[in-house]
Amino acid sequence: MFSVTIRDHLMIAHSLRGEVFGPAQGLHGATFVVDATFRRATLDADGIVVDIGRAAEVLRGVVGELTYRNLDDEAEFAGMNTTAEALAQVIADRLADRARAGALGDGGLELDGLVVTLHESHVASASYERSL
Amino acid sequence: MFSVTIRDHLMIAHSLRGEVFGPAQGLHGATFVVDATFRRATLDADGIVVDIGRAAEVLRGVVGELTYRNLDDEAEFAGMNTTAEALAQVIADRLADRARAGALGDGGLELDGLVVTLHESHVASASYERSL
Amino acid sequence: MFSVTIRDHLMIAHSLRGEVFGPAQGLHGATFVVDATFRRATLDADGIVVDIGRAAEVLRGVVGELTYRNLDDEAEFAGMNTTAEALAQVIADRLADRARAGALGDGGLELDGLVVTLHESHVASASYERSL
Amino acid sequence: MFSVTIRDHLMIAHSLRGEVFGPAQGLHGATFVVDATFRRATLDADGIVVDIGRAAEVLRGVVGELTYRNLDDEAEFAGMNTTAEALAQVIADRLADRARAGALGDGGLELDGLVVTLHESHVASASYERSL
Amino acid sequence: MFSVTIRDHLMIAHSLRGEVFGPAQGLHGATFVVDATFRRATLDADGIVVDIGRAAEVLRGVVGELTYRNLDDEAEFAGMNTTAEALAQVIADRLADRARAGALGDGGLELDGLVVTLHESHVASASYERSL
Amino acid sequence: MFSVTIRDHLMIAHSLRGEVFGPAQGLHGATFVVDATFRRATLDADGIVVDIGRAAEVLRGVVGELTYRNLDDEAEFAGMNTTAEALAQVIADRLADRARAGALGDGGLELDGLVVTLHESHVASASYERSL
Repeated sequence: MFSVTIRDHLMIAHSLRGEVFGPAQGLHGATFVVDATFRRATLDADGIVVDIGRAAEVLRGVVGELTYRNLDDEAEFAGMNTTAEALAQVIADRLADRARAGALGDGGLELDGLVVTLHESHVASASYERSL
Repeated sequence: MFSVTIRDHLMIAHSLRGEVFGPAQGLHGATFVVDATFRRATLDADGIVVDIGRAAEVLRGVVGELTYRNLDDEAEFAGMNTTAEALAQVIADRLADRARAGALGDGGLELDGLVVTLHESHVASASYERSL
Repeated sequence: MFSVTIRDHLMIAHSLRGEVFGPAQGLHGATFVVDATFRRATLDADGIVVDIGRAAEVLRGVVGELTYRNLDDEAEFAGMNTTAEALAQVIADRLADRARAGALGDGGLELDGLVVTLHESHVASASYERSL
Repeated sequence: MFSVTIRDHLMIAHSLRGEVFGPAQGLHGATFVVDATFRRATLDADGIVVDIGRAAEVLRGVVGELTYRNLDDEAEFAGMNTTAEALAQVIADRLADRARAGALGDGGLELDGLVVTLHESHVASASYERSL
Repeated sequence: MFSVTIRDHLMIAHSLRGEVFGPAQGLHGATFVVDATFRRATLDADGIVVDIGRAAEVLRGVVGELTYRNLDDEAEFAGMNTTAEALAQVIADRLADRARAGALGDGGLELDGLVVTLHESHVASASYERSL
Repeated sequence: MFSVTIRDHLMIAHSLRGEVFGPAQGLHGATFVVDATFRRATLDADGIVVDIGRAAEVLRGVVGELTYRNLDDEAEFAGMNTTAEALAQVIADRLADRARAGALGDGGLELDGLVVTLHESHVASASYERSL
């Protein structure tokens, strides 16, 4: 199995509902450094998993819909806790949708899976892994 | 599959028995930077894998039983080489025991697996992965 | 010259006033991974710059006054842009005040300088350096 | 499952054929920081996955065949794009061959798999994973 | 003293003339991860050292003149060894020229100094520091 | 001012005398990842600060005198606390002695200063800087 991983980041405000979150129930924020991993069983004729330039653009597009926002004000996240785990899934699912729609070229149609990891500090991260 | 990863560290003295270890047969030491990964197929109602604050406390508790010690003097490790691989398993098994005993809350009972990685320098690490 | 550096982090929401900030004029957030460096020309009788345990507690105290907050709502920052540069100075000045008040022990009174660096992502950071 | 990971690096010149590569079609170069992961279900009698000293030497040997070269001039890569993905496979396959030939000692014969990751910058990497 | 640091990278082929370089006398290549640090005694009215967005663009511009090339073929480097040390100076001097020409805005005219660090692997880097 | 930095590491056991050290008064250990920085105002005719291959060998030699040992048993450290700060000075002074003795070649005689940083974990490090 082959994979390529690309790094980008987003900077958001949000609050989290539930006693489990303690002080994170108040409005605060985070930088999420995002690692998006694209997995594929074989390489294409060019010797790559996917066009890394296009993959970086697609990731930038997905990240760009989220960054520099207060996620508490975004209608799409109403009634949902925007934890790192949940955002990893949101980003992975959007990457999957775009891959299937052809945004990553033909190589994107051959992907077997995706992993998205959000690093929220030097001591904590969250991941979501899915097939495709 | 979702996961969250938390980082902590321990600083121990030890020696390793066996010619394969060369100069590490003498008493020396190591900082092990520990990454503990908690894996789960679905998120709970709060949108998390596990309460990250409790997970960090539990990890700190497990690490606290080992750090600032000479492992050669610890009865529990008598007759065992305390390699990074072996210590990764010790830490993972202790985390698993505590998760099953409820120390991570209800979320901890739903975990599917654990990965513990010990980084011993900028060029070497060891991991142990288990189901739960 | 000797120094010791300790790492901690804070997670805040804020907005920045001024066209130069582009999309960061909206309410968003950041994780700032903080490196606090304590500088001193000579070591004390114990062979240290400063008690690293106390230094970590003092840094945690200073960081704890800022983390998990919306800095736009904090009276102390009214009329001030809470950029990474500005927050590095706030943190350095508070560490300096506490060092001079004895919170770091006698070693803290012998410090020659402080550097505080805030890493806001994998591609950007800001620092403030001062004498003491 | 246990694993150990060892880091080394290589510095090569190459060009890539295909419009997908854009400016990387010209002769340029890269540092690839290599993480080689050796996986095994159980530890040996010494408590290790594999002799890490020998593993580092074997990795150094494999890396040494590639580093400080213009891969466009190497007969073994004629007609092949030396992408990070493809080089990860080359390195993993050579490590597998040497493990099976006994270069890693008896432990090397018990390995279940290998993962080789090449980091080409702070924002991009490629991996190849195989059984053994 | 305040500073901000921005990271980018370049990927080049080159060879180095002189016995001291050993195998690096042959055509090979490197990824240089570049940290550009902009230093200034005081913050401007917006609370910043320099517009970080413009600084990133200017750095990208300077890096873009060098990346994806064989530096042995570039007329501007004829007769010069393109070591990491030398390239750090090239990049710093070009950043200084652009700052003085106004490319970083008014803040860029107030800079006191620049540091450029090129990381060529996980174990080696080179820096050049200059006033402005 | 130019500089080059080389990374290596050592793994030692030791104990520290003094109440300030709390649990670190017991025999424990550490990995110290060492960054040695060599500073020089101008480059030599080859375009370098110092022969990086020789510098790596010299650093390896100095580190090799310390690693895989219990520093409590080393006569040279009798009556001295082997803190990270103190070891940074030991390593810097030994590098300086070897540079002046010609071990780094002619370039080593032109060095203006050295900085040695010991990273003891992902959250703490110590440095010593000296002229030469």
